[in-house]
Amino acid sequence: MKLLKERIIKDGIVKGKDILKVDNFLNHQIDIELFNEMGKEFKNRFKNNEVNKILTVEASGIGLACIIAQHFGNVPVIFAKKHEALNLDSETYESEVYSFTKNKSYKIRTSKKYISKEDKILIIDDFLANGNAAKGLIDIARQGDAEVVGVGIAIEKSFQPGRVEIEKLGVRVESLARIDGFNEGKVILKD
Amino acid sequence: MKLLKERIIKDGIVKGKDILKVDNFLNHQIDIELFNEMGKEFKNRFKNNEVNKILTVEASGIGLACIIAQHFGNVPVIFAKKHEALNLDSETYESEVYSFTKNKSYKIRTSKKYISKEDKILIIDDFLANGNAAKGLIDIARQGDAEVVGVGIAIEKSFQPGRVEIEKLGVRVESLARIDGFNEGKVILKD
Repeated sequence: MKLLKERIIKDGIVKGKDILKVDNFLNHQIDIELFNEMGKEFKNRFKNNEVNKILTVEASGIGLACIIAQHFGNVPVIFAKKHEALNLDSETYESEVYSFTKNKSYKIRTSKKYISKEDKILIIDDFLANGNAAKGLIDIARQGDAEVVGVGIAIEKSFQPGRVEIEKLGVRVESLARIDGFNEGKVILKD
Repeated sequence: MKLLKERIIKDGIVKGKDILKVDNFLNHQIDIELFNEMGKEFKNRFKNNEVNKILTVEASGIGLACIIAQHFGNVPVIFAKKHEALNLDSETYESEVYSFTKNKSYKIRTSKKYISKEDKILIIDDFLANGNAAKGLIDIARQGDAEVVGVGIAIEKSFQPGRVEIEKLGVRVESLARIDGFNEGKVILKD
């Protein structure tokens, strides 16, 4: 997606070997117009699929998922929780997610009430790197016997194994910008 | 706001003495159409104010803030982070927030880059109880010399001191549904 790629080149900041900071439009300050353009693009890519629910994980995925849902007929958004919450049901689907950046595992969970075998779920997240968060979300959706229509990602680090790992599970991945690597502080986009 | 009040009566579940579960439309599963109606209502209530930025805190406030921003001309949304994040700037505004439900304090922070003295900020959150999260957000906005136009809340527990605490700081509070208390598992709405 041209608009997103241009924005990454313009505003993305490379930190260290493999951190891309896009906090001025994606995951700290949010550009709502850009998110709506991304919603249109995802709708276009999944136009032949029926999607009746969007699943994401707190926190950075939530804003993107909500704006995107508008382009899929205002389907409900569910966000999996990373933290214990008083207001979460006791009956949950859980999955363990290993974070390479934090070098530890955490659990994500959703109430069983909101995922069922009638559901055709689009999973949305801001970044795809090793794919562990997305795999956890696929696991949760499948525990609820839902169909996972695909995984929609804003920025994919294509030099990390996330895409391959998700495709191994038989799930389609659509990323709006794919990054091949970084070179002297510059982002190298795929294509 | 009638629509939200009706939804609370229909789908809210009272747990224990003072927990209201609204996870099927507000803070786990999200009803996008309802959020857009809430956005219209906030725009109406703040129609005489210039708002150029929306500030919230992760995680439950993010979806609401993003949808609401569309009704204020797609102003940027900033979400304060509760957790250490690799992609956050080292230069941050921080505030300490005490959580009664968790009986501990945590820090919220935003990059200094996204708050300035030109900003007219609307603070958005899903719940208002003791007001500590909102007070932390006001503190952060004021550290950046921004003007806080108001605090917009989905559900206010009017039997807790949040509103009074915020008004003491000279900030206007607008809540779309105000709850006076709970009685035998039923929600008692104000008005």
